[in-house]
Amino acid sequence: MATFREATPEQAAYLRTLLEHGHLIETDAPGIYGHGEDLERVRNGLSAAVTRAAIPDAPEAMRFPPLFSRFQLEKNGYLASFPHLAGSVFSFDGSDAAALEQEAVAGRHEDWSAFQTMTDLVVLPAACYPVYPEIAKRGVLPATGATVDTGSAWVFRNEPSGDPGRLRQFHMQELVRIGHPDVVAEFRDAWLQRTIDLFGRLGLDVSSEVASDPFFGRVGRMLAANQRAQELKFELLALIGGPEPTAIASFNAHQDHFSLIYGLETEGADVTHTGCVAFGIERITLALFRAHGMDVAQWPGEVGAELWP
Amino acid sequence: MATFREATPEQAAYLRTLLEHGHLIETDAPGIYGHGEDLERVRNGLSAAVTRAAIPDAPEAMRFPPLFSRFQLEKNGYLASFPHLAGSVFSFDGSDAAALEQEAVAGRHEDWSAFQTMTDLVVLPAACYPVYPEIAKRGVLPATGATVDTGSAWVFRNEPSGDPGRLRQFHMQELVRIGHPDVVAEFRDAWLQRTIDLFGRLGLDVSSEVASDPFFGRVGRMLAANQRAQELKFELLALIGGPEPTAIASFNAHQDHFSLIYGLETEGADVTHTGCVAFGIERITLALFRAHGMDVAQWPGEVGAELWP
Repeated sequence: MATFREATPEQAAYLRTLLEHGHLIETDAPGIYGHGEDLERVRNGLSAAVTRAAIPDAPEAMRFPPLFSRFQLEKNGYLASFPHLAGSVFSFDGSDAAALEQEAVAGRHEDWSAFQTMTDLVVLPAACYPVYPEIAKRGVLPATGATVDTGSAWVFRNEPSGDPGRLRQFHMQELVRIGHPDVVAEFRDAWLQRTIDLFGRLGLDVSSEVASDPFFGRVGRMLAANQRAQELKFELLALIGGPEPTAIASFNAHQDHFSLIYGLETEGADVTHTGCVAFGIERITLALFRAHGMDVAQWPGEVGAELWP
Repeated sequence: MATFREATPEQAAYLRTLLEHGHLIETDAPGIYGHGEDLERVRNGLSAAVTRAAIPDAPEAMRFPPLFSRFQLEKNGYLASFPHLAGSVFSFDGSDAAALEQEAVAGRHEDWSAFQTMTDLVVLPAACYPVYPEIAKRGVLPATGATVDTGSAWVFRNEPSGDPGRLRQFHMQELVRIGHPDVVAEFRDAWLQRTIDLFGRLGLDVSSEVASDPFFGRVGRMLAANQRAQELKFELLALIGGPEPTAIASFNAHQDHFSLIYGLETEGADVTHTGCVAFGIERITLALFRAHGMDVAQWPGEVGAELWP
């Protein structure tokens, strides 16, 4: 079982406040929370605000379920970089007698894993992953490339924690850009500024920094250092639970990583790049509650106008 | 691996039509589809229409993620009735060296299940399951009981099929009623009529029938016969893919099943009952496309007014 990461006292206090106001609903699985009505309103308003901010890019809308093809995860490199965060789906495929035995073992809360076998599905770890194989089916892209808005997609990172800013399953919304390297680079830079403006209208104080992904193990530390050195990832950070800010949005250059895996090609380009802007929807939502208080009815009018115009 | 159920020619033709119009997006996992923009608009409009129809009941809104506590699944009886439909989540918790080996095996699309161990999570099979333990935390309920709207929740049934009316992961919206037996029975009856009216306003031709759940195995056939004999489950059916109608909503009396498991009690009641109304959101959405055509802009004005008032 993955190691539980204790919350700091400030994070634990913020979680208690969110639970007391019914914004989060505790379950007995750490990092898995239900949402109350007001949090859902903010979350949906925020996702719609991101989609509105993307109107100038005229992205295609594509929504994918929380479960994902195991074959594609095996193919796209995730298990090399983040084996500790991935979830795979198992199921039962046995006889009547085996089902009875499984139920008896499970009913005693003992280990029934031996009755389960691996399926063709995993839990989706990033909103953009189903997009690349779908776009690849189109063959050579026009010179303008492709732009996709994933909407709010449920994603999973198996890192149990008491910090409400570090959920195990949460919504990520991504804007994905595929095409000429300069087009993808411009998209990322434009969105960094556009997102700073959006967060400003939402009354969030943010800082930006060069960042790296939480790559696994010793090799991962080299990958992370390389990612920082090449400035492939920027993050915007805001206060959620504790006194240290947490990343709430990231701006990512994948260079030709996904293009090589999926054979993505663009008219007139020697090489096709991909990049994405990722919004941690629950993190931004919790940052809004931190900034403006637990009672949504008391939030500044201009924040409400941005969320629910 | 669960057996793939072939589509009938009519179901396969309807799936092709949905794919050609971009309403569904095929992945390489059977029964797992992306959604296009118009399907999402209909789906969200439909879910909001269900929530509006529930205003007289003043339900609490509770939203839960697509992953669910394994402990609760072990406890609530699902593995006895539907072991073949359940999904459990496994993950990696090994060393650097094991991660490298797992990645090498997975990268060749060979069997990497031995590197995965069971977590404390399963895939949510029904929208109402997280509600009961949460309500139970409140102790004895007031005489009026409790009413919950789960909104559109992602649920999973591991039955791969080529029928677009039988997805493996889809949205279910449930209205859950907990309280005095007569109150719960009245709720179910009222919602049967209210849902027939709603579907009428949406231009769907529906039929109703006494139904049973797809219980597993030989014992399951007796459970199903008992469920029918006691009329514990009604369904409303409509045309989706083929010439045979498919269940799109169900009206369920659980009697004291969940109350006994979770110790639910209601002021002034000798026994507490639970019941739920479940809407298969994608099935209803696909029935709407079948009834009104692939071009949402051409749908009857009164249907649009119901979905997007």
